[in-house]
Amino acid sequence: MKIKSVEVVPLNIPLKEPFIIALGKCDVAKNVLIKIHLEDGTIGYGEVSSSGVITGDVQSTVIDVVKYLTPVLAGESIENYRYLIKKLRSIIKFHPGAFAGIENALLDAYTQYIGIPLYKFLGGMRDEIESDITISITTPEKAAQTAQEYSKKGFKVLKIKVGKDFKEDFERVMAVSEAVDCEIRIDANQGYNPKEAVKFINSVWDAGVNVTLFEQPVHCQNIKGLKYVTDNSPVPVAADETVFTATDAFNIARERAVDVINIKLAKCGGVLEALDIIAVAKASGLDLMIGCMLESNVGLSPSVHLACGTGEFSYIDLDSHVFLKELPLSGGFEVDGQKLIVKNIKEGIGIKESTQSSIKP
Amino acid sequence: MKIKSVEVVPLNIPLKEPFIIALGKCDVAKNVLIKIHLEDGTIGYGEVSSSGVITGDVQSTVIDVVKYLTPVLAGESIENYRYLIKKLRSIIKFHPGAFAGIENALLDAYTQYIGIPLYKFLGGMRDEIESDITISITTPEKAAQTAQEYSKKGFKVLKIKVGKDFKEDFERVMAVSEAVDCEIRIDANQGYNPKEAVKFINSVWDAGVNVTLFEQPVHCQNIKGLKYVTDNSPVPVAADETVFTATDAFNIARERAVDVINIKLAKCGGVLEALDIIAVAKASGLDLMIGCMLESNVGLSPSVHLACGTGEFSYIDLDSHVFLKELPLSGGFEVDGQKLIVKNIKEGIGIKESTQSSIKP
Repeated sequence: MKIKSVEVVPLNIPLKEPFIIALGKCDVAKNVLIKIHLEDGTIGYGEVSSSGVITGDVQSTVIDVVKYLTPVLAGESIENYRYLIKKLRSIIKFHPGAFAGIENALLDAYTQYIGIPLYKFLGGMRDEIESDITISITTPEKAAQTAQEYSKKGFKVLKIKVGKDFKEDFERVMAVSEAVDCEIRIDANQGYNPKEAVKFINSVWDAGVNVTLFEQPVHCQNIKGLKYVTDNSPVPVAADETVFTATDAFNIARERAVDVINIKLAKCGGVLEALDIIAVAKASGLDLMIGCMLESNVGLSPSVHLACGTGEFSYIDLDSHVFLKELPLSGGFEVDGQKLIVKNIKEGIGIKESTQSSIKP
Repeated sequence: MKIKSVEVVPLNIPLKEPFIIALGKCDVAKNVLIKIHLEDGTIGYGEVSSSGVITGDVQSTVIDVVKYLTPVLAGESIENYRYLIKKLRSIIKFHPGAFAGIENALLDAYTQYIGIPLYKFLGGMRDEIESDITISITTPEKAAQTAQEYSKKGFKVLKIKVGKDFKEDFERVMAVSEAVDCEIRIDANQGYNPKEAVKFINSVWDAGVNVTLFEQPVHCQNIKGLKYVTDNSPVPVAADETVFTATDAFNIARERAVDVINIKLAKCGGVLEALDIIAVAKASGLDLMIGCMLESNVGLSPSVHLACGTGEFSYIDLDSHVFLKELPLSGGFEVDGQKLIVKNIKEGIGIKESTQSSIKP
């Protein structure tokens, strides 16, 4: 089945409230929707969340890159998906978000074409997963209140953003820990130096917080610093911004600089590279986490399918759909509190155009 | 679609002439045929070549292990192939050949079920590859004569077995090199010590032989020795018996002990682990080779599909079908001299039962 055309449109989705992390603040998810049309009318969907400070992809560059790359897809057979993805990769370097969006749309179209859901294509290990939910940087009182709301909705694992101000960070974590009986993951988004990071994680640990993961404590390029934190942390340490590709994963595994690798399709450029990172992590005995940017259900769905299909992720952080005011398209997975469920998807990633939304892609 | 039953039968295939390598001699390929029957009548085929001295799998143990494992498959859904493979892996350790045979049969059944050929399932990078062909340990005269016959049949790359006697090995390589204008790969099957290996490869190189690869020069456990050979060889060095799994690949890549990893499904236990080894090799910048034991077209076909579907192999050594007196089943791939072609396969690995053969599985 041949590819007919590729559409790319901006998708601006307001957030329910500002999302604040050590790297910046966001009010509107300035995403990009990619549609790959096959000759039989099938549409494969992909979405890119602009996360320039992490991946270098912003809305305008994603649209530019998709327009620059995708003319080579027209007339090509969707069956040869690996060939198509390699062909695109040979044209331009970097832009992992744009690549992920195109690849997700290709794999959605491909798995619709062969008539199976993506998670079954990837192996069908399970049909549901449980995600944590993120509390961004805010006051201790607001954080505790938000934690209670999430706890009531059924979330048992909270991820708290830190890395901006040591004292306020500590108070935020303590306030949440006292407000709810949840497992807590901590994400500094590179905000500490190695000594601060070790001091911080030991402080919350010694204070009795039920903390189970410390994500990206120090600058993404500081591998030795990351290893220092890992060697001196009472809980597993995860690399996020430090690992984009399978080669990054190999290099960090070789140094044993972390315990866990956080895969995001927007960083690695798509499911194929994600499978390679999974392989490297498994081969070297590292654990795996899967995360997201600010994608709607369209961009999240391939990650949910990847986590379900392979069953390889110990830490799941696929929560961005919760922060958006509305979802311009429907489907992808069902949500039941912390559960993300794909079992009723018959083919592809299960996205459908919606007439309900005020945001017209 | 549910799995109905699993059949396992011995498949004894005489060789055209004895196959002799540093590790031993073989007159009959004592293989095992595995058939996975789905409820709709689909049959998935797998074949294991007993290669006890390398993998620990001999015909009787393979049959035992398949019978021990496969009752858990009955009634399970073929769609959840990764779940099934992991379930089997959790029951018994080692026996990579037996696992490869079962997994190959599962993936053949699965890709027939979803109606696409295995190489398209794996990405459809290309639909044909070119293999070398192996000259086993024999006299220089016989080796030269065999080389000329293969050259006439269209083979442009010869792999010569060595590792038994330094002087005779050298004479065999020289005789072949003088007899034909071909690229030459050398495989010692662990037969040398590191100093001998370095001396051997430099001798043939200095003598002007068009040698492009030196495979498994030293004992499989001697990683430091392998690295010593790699550091002192004028051509790339490949690990074969040293690397079974993705973890083996990671460990050897970490030490940069070789330039190339030779993947064989019979060593790693199937396509999924092979994909993981590919990922580790790519992530660490190593090249890849794909090889075989003494499988017929049934056991070779998944490797041909893997090489075609991923397009990741720089060195292809899938030649065992040439050494067998007959092929008990038909299909799998077409052969045109050194070319192995999968483009006409519509689903699965393309194996069909044959009424032509005198060997009844």
